[in-house]
Amino acid sequence: MKEPLDFIYKEQKELSTFGGIAALLGWDQMTYMPPMGASDRSEQTALISRLSHEKVISDKLWKHIENLSKSKNFENLPPKDKAVVTRLKKDVEKARMIPSSFVERMVKTTTLAYPAWQEAREKSNFKIFIPYLEKIVELEKEYCGYINLPGPRYNTLVDDYEEGMTVDKLKKEFKYLKTQIIDILEKIKTSRLFKKQHEIDLKFPIEKQREICNIVIETMLLPKDKSRIDMSTHPFTTSMGYNDVRITTNYERKNPLFSFFSTAHEAGHALYELGVPRDEFKYTVISDSPSLGLHESQSRFWENMICRSKHFWNYFYPIFKRKSPDQLKDLDIDIWYRYVNSVKPSFIRVEADELTYCLHVILRFELENSLIDDKIKVSELPEIWNNKMDEILGIIPKNDKDGVLQDMHWSGGNFGYFPTYAIGSIYSSQLFKKLTDENPSILSNIEKGDFRNIIIWLRENVHKYGRMMTADEIIKNACGEGLNAKVFVNYLKNKYYNLYDI
Amino acid sequence: MKEPLDFIYKEQKELSTFGGIAALLGWDQMTYMPPMGASDRSEQTALISRLSHEKVISDKLWKHIENLSKSKNFENLPPKDKAVVTRLKKDVEKARMIPSSFVERMVKTTTLAYPAWQEAREKSNFKIFIPYLEKIVELEKEYCGYINLPGPRYNTLVDDYEEGMTVDKLKKEFKYLKTQIIDILEKIKTSRLFKKQHEIDLKFPIEKQREICNIVIETMLLPKDKSRIDMSTHPFTTSMGYNDVRITTNYERKNPLFSFFSTAHEAGHALYELGVPRDEFKYTVISDSPSLGLHESQSRFWENMICRSKHFWNYFYPIFKRKSPDQLKDLDIDIWYRYVNSVKPSFIRVEADELTYCLHVILRFELENSLIDDKIKVSELPEIWNNKMDEILGIIPKNDKDGVLQDMHWSGGNFGYFPTYAIGSIYSSQLFKKLTDENPSILSNIEKGDFRNIIIWLRENVHKYGRMMTADEIIKNACGEGLNAKVFVNYLKNKYYNLYDI
Repeated sequence: MKEPLDFIYKEQKELSTFGGIAALLGWDQMTYMPPMGASDRSEQTALISRLSHEKVISDKLWKHIENLSKSKNFENLPPKDKAVVTRLKKDVEKARMIPSSFVERMVKTTTLAYPAWQEAREKSNFKIFIPYLEKIVELEKEYCGYINLPGPRYNTLVDDYEEGMTVDKLKKEFKYLKTQIIDILEKIKTSRLFKKQHEIDLKFPIEKQREICNIVIETMLLPKDKSRIDMSTHPFTTSMGYNDVRITTNYERKNPLFSFFSTAHEAGHALYELGVPRDEFKYTVISDSPSLGLHESQSRFWENMICRSKHFWNYFYPIFKRKSPDQLKDLDIDIWYRYVNSVKPSFIRVEADELTYCLHVILRFELENSLIDDKIKVSELPEIWNNKMDEILGIIPKNDKDGVLQDMHWSGGNFGYFPTYAIGSIYSSQLFKKLTDENPSILSNIEKGDFRNIIIWLRENVHKYGRMMTADEIIKNACGEGLNAKVFVNYLKNKYYNLYDI
Repeated sequence: MKEPLDFIYKEQKELSTFGGIAALLGWDQMTYMPPMGASDRSEQTALISRLSHEKVISDKLWKHIENLSKSKNFENLPPKDKAVVTRLKKDVEKARMIPSSFVERMVKTTTLAYPAWQEAREKSNFKIFIPYLEKIVELEKEYCGYINLPGPRYNTLVDDYEEGMTVDKLKKEFKYLKTQIIDILEKIKTSRLFKKQHEIDLKFPIEKQREICNIVIETMLLPKDKSRIDMSTHPFTTSMGYNDVRITTNYERKNPLFSFFSTAHEAGHALYELGVPRDEFKYTVISDSPSLGLHESQSRFWENMICRSKHFWNYFYPIFKRKSPDQLKDLDIDIWYRYVNSVKPSFIRVEADELTYCLHVILRFELENSLIDDKIKVSELPEIWNNKMDEILGIIPKNDKDGVLQDMHWSGGNFGYFPTYAIGSIYSSQLFKKLTDENPSILSNIEKGDFRNIIIWLRENVHKYGRMMTADEIIKNACGEGLNAKVFVNYLKNKYYNLYDI
């Protein structure tokens, strides 16, 4: 009993150490690496990933896991040990179902597909990307065959990012969400205030944006000795270690609110990572988040529920103004709050407003599901994309760059990832409702820029479980029910009817 | 024949990839890592170092090397393959002589000794460091026992950093160098110009220092797509890959010339790393430098021979002035050149002037040799240190912090490292003499800030060999003779007699 458990913990520690190294290799590549370093970096990343994979699928580890979980004394293990072994067993079992030759083919294909996608996007020519994407879709289907979860094929891919989630559940929630958002959007579009919506051409020097982002992470109590913020093309959060969680942003986009909101978003991810009980769960499979959707709920919580709220801007607008150019000097907070939340159907997901964001995600969910289910062909994607954009947002992208080619996910073979963005949005509204129902004083805390109680509540209700439970179990435990788009829709209605005087 | 060679190259590639990963882990720790990341970082570094060590000492690799180098066809291999196998054999043979338990004891001891040294230095209390240093000296002697090169015990330690170098050779060169430098120093001290030496209290904002350092590396043609400069407490150069060589400097010391000269110094190291024929030697043991002394010859070459020369300042002073505060506005270039090269006996090695620098190094060489040879005891070090400082520089440090505790090398078990600093200084003068003898137009190139011909010459005469030859062979090949302190002394006499009008 002692020996296999020791071995399992030893192996997990090494896997976790490999994970930290891989995170550093990736972070450096996106932030500071000189361009010519890319070739050696890919060798380094491939080596760590191979060593890590060999460890996960090793027969010795599997034998120990099997013996331990079948042994009579398994039930007498402390809950943490039991959870660790159970989780690990599931992960290892899945990894062992995939032939190594498949993993290699997938890596090779995506390694070539990424630059092809870049070129296609640059030239706004989907045709360049078609043969690569076709291969990837075939590989995704092959992958589903190895794991073979019940129900539609796409279930297997969704489950990889959101354990226990199914296409049927998502279809139901997303259908409702889509109809409701389109309905709200229609009401907004015909509103008096939509027509006289304020446009501000904000011009912030990068240095000022940087100062504001530093204030944001300080206000959000991200510990300086365990975190830092750097710049990359696309913002992200990554953990090099249990006490080293870094975020990035981008100060170079036209709109300075991009760096502001992406910093709040990534800081939300980082607070979650740092909120998992480090000493207890360290170096085990349960020190992670159980799902990407739950992770996204934390980032969306801070980005939307907090940082796009009126209460927040009552506190933060004077600070923001102080760092801003003269244009904001005489601008009233009400106009500013409306501006920050202005709804405007647009082509690019990552630049979408809070209301229409999920429509972008649902579009991708529908396309992925149809592709994996052989209902549509890769070559048909641009046309279907544009039709769907017209249907949901009433706009059609002028080219594929601003349409079907905008996201990198498919080039990396990350099918099943997109839905987690909408799941996170829904979860975040459920958590916010529960938090404020239980603690009405939270709203005045936000007005004072005091987020301690919020962080304590999130730790207590989400972070502290790590991967001891699934996302569904954690949300049910915290909010009394699982994924429920109604809560999100109510939140949206309240907010936007008020904003647009509907 | 084919198979063992393929295996040997495959293993070297992985070792080299581990090396790049370890370099990134170290670089990040010294530049950007949040303080609390240290504990996980040490796990990551230890894991990579263990995997790397296991690979080096594996029986399979050794068997292949032995079989190949004993086989009849070995002599018919292309020169590069032969060099690779011969070098690797030497490295692996040495590594296999050291018991793994010894490596573990050494790591444990130095891991504890480093913070002990830091504390001792902070409190300026050598006693705190004594037990740790005693243990390290014992381990160094034990190490010498395993390798057991002929002659004095210290030979083994010197050879680790400077293959083929011996205590006897160093004693001879260093004795001469020491006497001569002390003699030059005495002459300077009694000179008219020494007494009216200019003191300038330069105050540069960090931003201006950064701009100057960026100009330095641009002028030195360090390629931007393969390199970058960041900030760390102690300046260093490190290679994450064959096309990713980074340097650091420190802008926070009182003297802005510190960041200037350390940048030139580290850029010299980086040019060397990038100058080894990448495509040919990539991922093999011969892509390295053969010795630390030769590496240091490249950094000292740029720092001293070039960037402390009158020709260089004729070009660079106007640029430097433009970035500097008003104090330099009316300062004549001759006074500036004297100031940049002013001789002033001081306590701290890394802040020493070009003339007295080697005295600091020779002091450490003498102490290390005596310690390893059981001639003196660790507890006697402060007293002997201070006596020697009085003897060579005529000054005695007021405390151990500015004396025996100033360098971190001993806490890391790096005995035998110090001499390479003086070897590098000597080599750099030999290379500079040869270069300018062969190409008198180089001096006017320097005056124009055009360093292309210098870099080409260094590539052709030093860089291109990688580790195909020893440092001694490369210097003999380039300069017609091996290590010769006389050339350095002549250079110093020429320079300083002129500067001090002696």
